[in-house]
Amino acid sequence: MTRWPLPDPMKLALELARAAAGAGEVPIGAVVVKDGQVIATAHNAPRAQRDPTAHAEVLAIRAAAAALGQERLDGCDLWVTLEPCAMCAGAIVHARLDRVYYAASDAKGGAVEHGARVFEQPTCLHRPEVYSGMGEAEAADLLRTFFRERR
Amino acid sequence: MTRWPLPDPMKLALELARAAAGAGEVPIGAVVVKDGQVIATAHNAPRAQRDPTAHAEVLAIRAAAAALGQERLDGCDLWVTLEPCAMCAGAIVHARLDRVYYAASDAKGGAVEHGARVFEQPTCLHRPEVYSGMGEAEAADLLRTFFRERR
Repeated sequence: MTRWPLPDPMKLALELARAAAGAGEVPIGAVVVKDGQVIATAHNAPRAQRDPTAHAEVLAIRAAAAALGQERLDGCDLWVTLEPCAMCAGAIVHARLDRVYYAASDAKGGAVEHGARVFEQPTCLHRPEVYSGMGEAEAADLLRTFFRERR
Repeated sequence: MTRWPLPDPMKLALELARAAAGAGEVPIGAVVVKDGQVIATAHNAPRAQRDPTAHAEVLAIRAAAAALGQERLDGCDLWVTLEPCAMCAGAIVHARLDRVYYAASDAKGGAVEHGARVFEQPTCLHRPEVYSGMGEAEAADLLRTFFRERR
């Protein structure tokens, strides 16, 4: 059997998630792509940075905005290994990202297809296209292993 | 008639909102208080910082975490001039703030009593006490004036 290959940005996001786990952070990675080029990468880092907002998505969005020198990321896509939480979904809206690709869904903390469902609110100012599932087994396995080892 | 005086942290948040307007940013200010002491202040700054996540609340939370050298703001309260959006409400949850005081409500962008209602989600990991309305006329007037002058 040949398993369908993951798109490169999701492979990179999974590598970043692995690096997060190695650093003692919850393994979540994120990548921002514009015109086929990776312009920002980040992994979860709230412990190292002592910053509760330092989720992979927020860090990648901030790095992408800094790289482009602009507040809005029109024309950019975000690839992330886990369904974004309310904070990160809100940041995606403010950044005006075109598309969001996430691997594993998150019934507990997710706010895209669960909980606050940020993009589905009638008042939501910007709705990215959302695609999920690519790499979900790999992403979920990283999280399971991380939490099992810490129990 | 004597108008009931605003608590000092809300007065300070309103001053920060005024400073934001003076800098060409949407006038919203935020203050973090611990044990009666102001440990962080910020105003909205996404334009100046070219960062879509640079809302007053996120900046104040990050500054407070940096000041305390810890990821979580247990025992801290946030005072902000406008109802937090989904991103900021999510950041408040992750920061584990004890209490949130906000002045004006925001039917369009708010996510506390409107829209995503982040703290009311069954999956919400931490629910701060929330108090609203103190200084709402002042906060709303700052916003109205700001947007009227730019129309």
